Amino acid sequence: MNNFEFKNPTKIIFGRDTIVKLAEELPTDAKVLVLYGGGSIKKNGIYNQVKAALKDITHFEFGGIPANPEYSILMEALQVIKEKHITYLLAVGGGSVIDGTKFLSAAALYKGDTPWDILANRTPTLKGLPFGTVLTLPATGSEMNSGAVITNNKTQEKLGMGGAGLFPQFSILDPQVIKSVPKRQLVNGITDAFTHVLEQYLTYPAGALLQDRFAESIMNTLLEVAPTVVKDPSDYNAASNFMWSCTMALNGLIQKGVPTDWAVHAMVHELTALYGIDHARTLAIIAPSHYQYNFEAKKEKLAQYAERVWNITEGSVEDKAYAAIEKTESFFNQMGIETKLSKYTEDFDGTAEIISKRFTERGWLGLGEHKSLTPEDVENIVHMVY
Amino acid sequence: MNNFEFKNPTKIIFGRDTIVKLAEELPTDAKVLVLYGGGSIKKNGIYNQVKAALKDITHFEFGGIPANPEYSILMEALQVIKEKHITYLLAVGGGSVIDGTKFLSAAALYKGDTPWDILANRTPTLKGLPFGTVLTLPATGSEMNSGAVITNNKTQEKLGMGGAGLFPQFSILDPQVIKSVPKRQLVNGITDAFTHVLEQYLTYPAGALLQDRFAESIMNTLLEVAPTVVKDPSDYNAASNFMWSCTMALNGLIQKGVPTDWAVHAMVHELTALYGIDHARTLAIIAPSHYQYNFEAKKEKLAQYAERVWNITEGSVEDKAYAAIEKTESFFNQMGIETKLSKYTEDFDGTAEIISKRFTERGWLGLGEHKSLTPEDVENIVHMVY
Repeated sequence: MNNFEFKNPTKIIFGRDTIVKLAEELPTDAKVLVLYGGGSIKKNGIYNQVKAALKDITHFEFGGIPANPEYSILMEALQVIKEKHITYLLAVGGGSVIDGTKFLSAAALYKGDTPWDILANRTPTLKGLPFGTVLTLPATGSEMNSGAVITNNKTQEKLGMGGAGLFPQFSILDPQVIKSVPKRQLVNGITDAFTHVLEQYLTYPAGALLQDRFAESIMNTLLEVAPTVVKDPSDYNAASNFMWSCTMALNGLIQKGVPTDWAVHAMVHELTALYGIDHARTLAIIAPSHYQYNFEAKKEKLAQYAERVWNITEGSVEDKAYAAIEKTESFFNQMGIETKLSKYTEDFDGTAEIISKRFTERGWLGLGEHKSLTPEDVENIVHMVY
Repeated sequence: MNNFEFKNPTKIIFGRDTIVKLAEELPTDAKVLVLYGGGSIKKNGIYNQVKAALKDITHFEFGGIPANPEYSILMEALQVIKEKHITYLLAVGGGSVIDGTKFLSAAALYKGDTPWDILANRTPTLKGLPFGTVLTLPATGSEMNSGAVITNNKTQEKLGMGGAGLFPQFSILDPQVIKSVPKRQLVNGITDAFTHVLEQYLTYPAGALLQDRFAESIMNTLLEVAPTVVKDPSDYNAASNFMWSCTMALNGLIQKGVPTDWAVHAMVHELTALYGIDHARTLAIIAPSHYQYNFEAKKEKLAQYAERVWNITEGSVEDKAYAAIEKTESFFNQMGIETKLSKYTEDFDGTAEIISKRFTERGWLGLGEHKSLTPEDVENIVHMVY
């Protein structure tokens, strides 16, 4: 097991009808800015629940944060924060709204002239404006971690940020929100969370027995509940296990003491940029080929994954490892997610070269748990997904 | 899954040679009181590591905190805290030293005349004097939770306390400390942690699929590493998995959203009081009989435990459930822990009646996940362990 440090101070308030507890978590003298996305919360009743809970708290609203939280829109929200002397942010949404809120938490206290520098200079945020979240879509785990990804359409960049100051003070997780989430987004959420675990698990054995088992626990639970969540999102039991699994998949716990990969996430951003494919679907496209391409380096963990997650106990290490990759791809396919680029666009020629070129331009230092993958490797992997 | 709230702000610093990081976690102007137990840290080198790390920090020492942290001794430490205007406590030890430090953290800021009232009146501590820990013996999980048990020899009481203000600010877990822990204490630590999981898991199915799997993960890991830990505590890999499993067994995570039992812990305190049997061993004595006595209520989870922890897949629910109880008792026995009271004392006649009487005197309201066990049930269970 590798040395590690772990601290996660976010308070989770989980369960039925928990949005009413919102006001208890806010200072009575807070001036709150409520941030949300495209307005689905106004149709599914969550907006009304939040408004009711905030009735005695001074608050303002900023809606319209898009699916990949966009810098220029967030800068408009920052203007509101400054004009209204906001003291507390409340994200009501999924990963994009929460990530956008994290940027605003950092930007509100940032001393420099250009808040984009927080991302461009990779400045860790040690103190941000306090914020909480009401999660409306389980997927990214942003509700219990301190990271965010922000998009800048002008510069065509999508950069990460984070820091110990960017954990939500609290996150309210009511699994009942899932019943009004469109099937497409539920499937994306399951895929996103499952892939988060794979990135932290499918590396090489590092003697972290408990972390491995926790990772397998999350994947087994997602596999167990996925069919029910997709078929009947009003099934509270399935919804609650789905929701808690997504949070645990990326709250830091399972990555402590182990090597992590994250090459899949690094490669997929360009697919969203080039073809507008949903983030989760780009993960499902790239992941199986990534594991096949890096088979020798990953086969021991792939075989363990085969045994403990897919119950494949027959055959050699290689047999089991290959079977596990196939099972993973089938799982995505069975949920209705295509895993070949040609199913999303006819115009895929040259994609591998474009992506590889962008990695080269950025002076890429190496991807994956060994930091050994080159732009050429990236090109080869993307070629496999056509 | 039941509704739950979860917040655990303790920073864990885990791994080889991490004690040197101690000073980074302390305010530079802190006046620290270092608390420890019987002095084993002076033999195994931990004391010297701590002293070296604290060389630029003002600090005082208080040693001699006994295995069941005793109120009158802690009151002497409280005197030192007041006289020296201590601002930060540092526990260097196992669960007893850490629990004692938690009491002092609360008592140092307590406004009343008699700090014992914190325990007697079950006053939750929302703010305590800040403290950190250097863990020297994995077992209780106290290094990452906010609870403590304190003994008062004068009144013959052993009471619990806790509150959101009693999480350690940080805990340093260097698995290398395990190599100098006597075998008896290692076996006790494994048993203690394993039983902590059982108390949060062996109840009835509550649809908390992920929590169940996490609990099973901890037990499977403890079972996997226990033989190596006992045979060769200098095996770093086994030691690190043992240490992290003990912490995860009682840091709150696996008890969220599920019913919990804790009847075994409630019953065993009297065995320690009456016969001086190690706490962990009293757990091993009571647990198997408790599960047999409450077989009908627990058989479904017992069967799940049989399948997923003991690989018992043949037979009826009842067959598997019984086999799991036998396996559990055998596990304790194989580590050298006797599970019958008669192996510890010849003078066991009347024990069940004494314990049952004490529960009656306390106006006991019911033990277990259904709060349904009566003093008579306790008497019957204790009769089974002679």
